[in-house]
Amino acid sequence: MIAPPQDSDRSNRLLRALLRQPVDMTPVWLMRQAGRYLPEYRALRTQAGSFLNLCQTPELACEVTLQPVRRFPLDGAILFSDILTVPDAMGLGLQFVEGEGPRFERPIRDKHDVARLSVPDPHVDLRYVLDTVSLVRRELAGLCPLIGFSGSPWTLATYMVEGQGSSDFRRIKGLLYTDPALLTRLLTVLVAAVTAYLNAQIEAGAQAVMIFDTWGGSLAADHFLRYSRDPMSAIIAKLIRTRDGKPVPVVVFTKGGGTWLPALAETQCDALGIDWTCSLRAAREIVGDKVALQGNLDPMALYSPPDRLREEVLAVLADFGTGPGHVFNLGHGVLPDVDPERVALCIDTVHTASARSRFSQ
Amino acid sequence: MIAPPQDSDRSNRLLRALLRQPVDMTPVWLMRQAGRYLPEYRALRTQAGSFLNLCQTPELACEVTLQPVRRFPLDGAILFSDILTVPDAMGLGLQFVEGEGPRFERPIRDKHDVARLSVPDPHVDLRYVLDTVSLVRRELAGLCPLIGFSGSPWTLATYMVEGQGSSDFRRIKGLLYTDPALLTRLLTVLVAAVTAYLNAQIEAGAQAVMIFDTWGGSLAADHFLRYSRDPMSAIIAKLIRTRDGKPVPVVVFTKGGGTWLPALAETQCDALGIDWTCSLRAAREIVGDKVALQGNLDPMALYSPPDRLREEVLAVLADFGTGPGHVFNLGHGVLPDVDPERVALCIDTVHTASARSRFSQ
Repeated sequence: MIAPPQDSDRSNRLLRALLRQPVDMTPVWLMRQAGRYLPEYRALRTQAGSFLNLCQTPELACEVTLQPVRRFPLDGAILFSDILTVPDAMGLGLQFVEGEGPRFERPIRDKHDVARLSVPDPHVDLRYVLDTVSLVRRELAGLCPLIGFSGSPWTLATYMVEGQGSSDFRRIKGLLYTDPALLTRLLTVLVAAVTAYLNAQIEAGAQAVMIFDTWGGSLAADHFLRYSRDPMSAIIAKLIRTRDGKPVPVVVFTKGGGTWLPALAETQCDALGIDWTCSLRAAREIVGDKVALQGNLDPMALYSPPDRLREEVLAVLADFGTGPGHVFNLGHGVLPDVDPERVALCIDTVHTASARSRFSQ
Repeated sequence: MIAPPQDSDRSNRLLRALLRQPVDMTPVWLMRQAGRYLPEYRALRTQAGSFLNLCQTPELACEVTLQPVRRFPLDGAILFSDILTVPDAMGLGLQFVEGEGPRFERPIRDKHDVARLSVPDPHVDLRYVLDTVSLVRRELAGLCPLIGFSGSPWTLATYMVEGQGSSDFRRIKGLLYTDPALLTRLLTVLVAAVTAYLNAQIEAGAQAVMIFDTWGGSLAADHFLRYSRDPMSAIIAKLIRTRDGKPVPVVVFTKGGGTWLPALAETQCDALGIDWTCSLRAAREIVGDKVALQGNLDPMALYSPPDRLREEVLAVLADFGTGPGHVFNLGHGVLPDVDPERVALCIDTVHTASARSRFSQ
């Protein structure tokens, strides 16, 4: 039995893996690990009255952030917040209609709307997020690291122009094809806004940050580079990368971005999120030792019977193979009606199997 | 000025390109080229009373198939039919609810439903499709080739189990994770059904066939191979590949399958359909000279102003580059409210620019 490397227990296993340093076992956290599948979340959500109140009240958002890391031996906590806080702070009026997802009261419709936008000061306009970050860091007391996040400029622009989620991206694509200069102006404001927002999260205590490029996969290949990848690179170039003498890893996740991994690896991020459609082995062959990989169990696999779930988790670990640089995650968020017992089994399987394979062979 | 290669005018430019033979200009056809964006289609649709009546009446389906090739100098006609004719012939009861898309009266819910399925005899149960094929061939009189098609087994299974379109594929994924043997039985029936259906289309006169794997992109990488790619390979292995002394090319199109092109190129198909998220140049580097490529303008680009549309079409041609093996198409279907003038411009740009670049340099 070889002793595990120093400093790679739950308190920093995740950060080490994101930096491609050796760890005692594969760290795991799950997108939407704080959410509706947890009974304690549903109770707090009812108490809060509205989803927005839950996000905007630091004590409540902190509690939601902590719920999954109390219940499960997760290797990271992710800030509980909404992806659309930045456009909301820009004055678009975020609303949640029950059963319909987010919607803006004042979506971007023309050049005058774009001209009116200004970069929010996170310390003023997004104070509640920064307060949540500080509170979570204090409450976590070093148990595991806290991950901050933002939507990517393209993803935020999509919501701002569509006014809500979209299945065909007709309005934002219309803007791209009819007035690319206006789209570029919108993205420029968003690059500044997201940069300030993520840096403020880091200053408030976020130990890693992730950029969610949820809608990048809707773009044609060369448009992806120009309108989604490049704005993310511009943000990453200006992020605080070391805080209190420790590196702050940056993760980029483009859903449906499997064919663009070489281009994404050039953003100077530390790790790439990989959705479940892409083989980790293939991804690793493509990116080499440039970045760590985070992923990628099919979220639907959490509905499997226990034995099958275990097999699927082992298949993800085997697909990545040995060596540093893997953070286990789902390929997308935990679904609202998943059994928490399955989540527990998933996490336990990752830890147990990876610890065994790395230290007993 | 070099004379164009023999036999590569509108009557067989498409077939030659699918086989990676030289052509005088890049052939073009568009997924859903027969459809709602054409006023003559809307008129016939009203006359037919229902969408199903339009599909199931050979004279009407033939007329719809011919409408776009009469209006535009397209290099191929694609059979007008629905992707769900096979499950309908298996007794699931296809219905179209206005504004909601297809739905089955009797979806597959358990092993008894699967056990009851039998392989339809296309000459009996899908006679109307074969009659349409024969009629279209006669009416086309060699103007351009006719492409037949079917949904892939995975895509048909998805609709059959979900009962309708789905955004999360919960039921079919549930089947995959809880009873993979039952899913395999369902796919086995579908492989036999699709093989018989496509071969009957070829015997009736289809000069190329395409397998639409619309939902393959929902699968995890290794599941894609087992549950979507392998069933398609099994079909292709049994297709009639030569008819009346002429090769019958096979095209496979997995939407969202950009990361699986090497695996798709191994299906023994002649060409791969490429969606708009994947660079044709990158795809070509991956598949080499194994298969031709068909694609891949973003369908939303058809909403661009004329100059911009022309640029986008030229970018697709340039992305493929020179040499044989490109069939121009969209990365998905023509949208219902596109201006037919834009479609005309797109086709003209493909022909004019590709003819110039190949013969005047």
